[in-house]
Amino acid sequence: MATQNLASHISTLPESHDKLYKQVALRIAELIEHGTLRPGERIPSVRELSEREEVSIATVTQAYRVLESRGLIEARPQSGYYVRARLWSPPPEPGRSEPTRSATRVSVNELVMEVLKATHAPALVGFGAAMPSMQLLPALQFNRTMASVARRHPRQCNTCDIPPGNLNLRTQIARRAMESGCTLSPDEIVTTCGCQEALNLCLRAVAKPGDTIGIESPTYYGILQIIESLGMKACEIPTYPRDGVCLDELAKRLNSCRIKACVFSLNFSNPLGSCMPDQKKKQLVRLLAERAIPLIEDDLYGTLSHAPQRPKTAKAFDQEGLVLLCDSFTKTLAPGSRVGWTAPGRFKTLVEHLKFINTVGTPTLPQMAIAEFLANGGYDHHVRRLRRVYAEQVRLVTQAIAKYFPEGTKVTRPAGGYVLWVELAPQIRSLELFERAVAEKISIAPGPIFSAKQKFQNFIRLSCGTPWSEATDQALLKLGQIIARMM
Amino acid sequence: MATQNLASHISTLPESHDKLYKQVALRIAELIEHGTLRPGERIPSVRELSEREEVSIATVTQAYRVLESRGLIEARPQSGYYVRARLWSPPPEPGRSEPTRSATRVSVNELVMEVLKATHAPALVGFGAAMPSMQLLPALQFNRTMASVARRHPRQCNTCDIPPGNLNLRTQIARRAMESGCTLSPDEIVTTCGCQEALNLCLRAVAKPGDTIGIESPTYYGILQIIESLGMKACEIPTYPRDGVCLDELAKRLNSCRIKACVFSLNFSNPLGSCMPDQKKKQLVRLLAERAIPLIEDDLYGTLSHAPQRPKTAKAFDQEGLVLLCDSFTKTLAPGSRVGWTAPGRFKTLVEHLKFINTVGTPTLPQMAIAEFLANGGYDHHVRRLRRVYAEQVRLVTQAIAKYFPEGTKVTRPAGGYVLWVELAPQIRSLELFERAVAEKISIAPGPIFSAKQKFQNFIRLSCGTPWSEATDQALLKLGQIIARMM
Repeated sequence: MATQNLASHISTLPESHDKLYKQVALRIAELIEHGTLRPGERIPSVRELSEREEVSIATVTQAYRVLESRGLIEARPQSGYYVRARLWSPPPEPGRSEPTRSATRVSVNELVMEVLKATHAPALVGFGAAMPSMQLLPALQFNRTMASVARRHPRQCNTCDIPPGNLNLRTQIARRAMESGCTLSPDEIVTTCGCQEALNLCLRAVAKPGDTIGIESPTYYGILQIIESLGMKACEIPTYPRDGVCLDELAKRLNSCRIKACVFSLNFSNPLGSCMPDQKKKQLVRLLAERAIPLIEDDLYGTLSHAPQRPKTAKAFDQEGLVLLCDSFTKTLAPGSRVGWTAPGRFKTLVEHLKFINTVGTPTLPQMAIAEFLANGGYDHHVRRLRRVYAEQVRLVTQAIAKYFPEGTKVTRPAGGYVLWVELAPQIRSLELFERAVAEKISIAPGPIFSAKQKFQNFIRLSCGTPWSEATDQALLKLGQIIARMM
Repeated sequence: MATQNLASHISTLPESHDKLYKQVALRIAELIEHGTLRPGERIPSVRELSEREEVSIATVTQAYRVLESRGLIEARPQSGYYVRARLWSPPPEPGRSEPTRSATRVSVNELVMEVLKATHAPALVGFGAAMPSMQLLPALQFNRTMASVARRHPRQCNTCDIPPGNLNLRTQIARRAMESGCTLSPDEIVTTCGCQEALNLCLRAVAKPGDTIGIESPTYYGILQIIESLGMKACEIPTYPRDGVCLDELAKRLNSCRIKACVFSLNFSNPLGSCMPDQKKKQLVRLLAERAIPLIEDDLYGTLSHAPQRPKTAKAFDQEGLVLLCDSFTKTLAPGSRVGWTAPGRFKTLVEHLKFINTVGTPTLPQMAIAEFLANGGYDHHVRRLRRVYAEQVRLVTQAIAKYFPEGTKVTRPAGGYVLWVELAPQIRSLELFERAVAEKISIAPGPIFSAKQKFQNFIRLSCGTPWSEATDQALLKLGQIIARMM
């Protein structure tokens, strides 16, 4: 990775209480770039640098962690940090998306379901589904918590829990929302059957069939499917792979397309991995609030920052109750539980009613077990580990793309989450690539499922949710060969 | 209970393989009516009657069980069956409902949510919510099953299970559907987050906003809420408290109201407890099939027949794939699990897609645990017990109404389920009664929440889901006094 890229990358990292760590990381990155520190050389110890730069040990530690997750330095046991051998540079990044300017009917559902069916077939090396690997989640510990809760509360856990949902869980969620800059009370939260139900309910609360919804381009296909199934229209907004939605373009289309509400994933969006800087989030919230337009914020990947600190949510800047924050525990802890939640601001009563109408309640035992795991199960420790693992896996897949994919391939550089958005040569049809890959027992997600009108014909999304192995490497090699043959 | 009532009641009991048992039950009922057998007298033993009438032991046993659940005879240990002392006769039944003839917008949601909030407050003697009492469900055994499944399949049970849902569970459901006369394969079934999600998905699959849906009058408020939330209209069909929907009236309104689909609960509907005779179901299915109108069949209470055999579903007569059968395990086994299912006939693919869009998947561990409990946990034994218990509780509440409520009160005589629909004097406003009762820490469900336009002002629904106790008796006495004061 060219250090200039790294430098600008580091500058987009989320702010933390300690803003110095970015400067420290940047300084070391520059030393490496200028050759002052060379591959294989030992860099100053945490203590040395702390004394030299007159910053705290914690600041230097955080800076080194960032450099480590970016693959710039590596820790050697009982020896310190060393500049990593740099044998590759990542491919260039895709540019800003340029969707059509008008609101359109969405027609992507049939294609999505077809792709998903193929993706979930067994014996595939899976880059298709953005499901976290079971090997990375504390399934055993979580199951023990479930069994223990069931034993201690046999009747409660078998009783239907009507909205807003389990109080202990809502309390834990409110407590953790502080990390993303939100002050929430448990009363503002409604638990749901996953983030997907939360998005459904919020959309139904703020818009009607025929209304136009502003979305990122590209966007998660599940959001497109909801919009399509509810008979709404989509207005796709140009989006930068690093900073997210282009606010100037959004401002124009709010009027021209009469946008009723927006659904954005501001932190490590799927599939772009874009992360809107916190200051830009503040502008976004103001822009929408001036027009009283609700923002449904899908923060499913916000926790999975590759840096030690997670970015803020738009909800943190919401003063009008117009941001409906949606999230779940399906990506970080318990995919099988389908437990999610929303903090729908001024739409809370309506969302709570719609939740009751849609599914009556969220399953009780999973809610109780997650509440207990959040309180006592070492969730934060687990999330810290997950952040490091995903950063590393994203780096490894990027490296393999650089090695195996044809010249001209472009790849995003997400600072969180575990998906990569890959732009192939213009003549590659990713739906055809998808079929050829499936025939070789490799799953990928073709670009068209991330667009209202099946654009992004030459893009694919690769999920890096599965731990790296020889099979992953071989599958990426094979994928590169298939692509080369299609050119 | 006048024996004439009993006789006609017995004639509406479901057919079983052995059709003789009804005749035998009827004969004994007549002997009691004519005074040949008098209160306190011993009736012929099962063996005696079997020999005398030349029918099987099983037939007589089944007949005696029916007579016992109807409170006509009682078993005395090691002594045989005796005519029960009859100190009360049940109140008369309400007549056929007479809703307006035209399709109407539904506006009941706000009221329902207000009532539910009050109903779920703690420390109430609960006749309001139709939730089964935890004391009657095998919570401990079911929790053991959950813990055991989690231990044996730690990763699988934590993995997201996309539609159509867990195969073992669908296999068990298909197997049990035979009892209601259905031949289903697991492939025809989609699991859901409770029956409520199934009803939502099915309605969205067969109708659009603005379309008119035929429903029973009165009907379960959850169905009214779905129709309202989807911007559909309702056409309420006159319904008999015993036989269910009036087919002549339905036929008329299918045309005049341009009904797009029907949602009926044919077996022990909520709140009427009506059970459409199987032959009439067959006619209903034919009537709708001739017009290619889909029937969403809510069979949530079908299992809870008070007789040993459960009635058939309309799905059993469906040859066109136009019946979308919906059910769940929330009333018979695991309310907290929110696991339901649908067999949506020719709409299966669409329903499966909508399920994915709505909530992605049904929680995995609850599905696996229910599948295992159905296979090995003694579910059938438990259901047999539940049927007897509910029959008895419905009898006891009916008896208390006869004792404590003012003259002129009318009550349904359900042959299954655990709710009673009570017609009070015309001047009683059940919403006012609801508030007065809540002030006395008694919950009831006021009639207006069961109607699109908040009719049934002088009706209430009483749930008999809680085991009988002195507190139940006292609450019904108090309720009777409140009603009397309002007259």
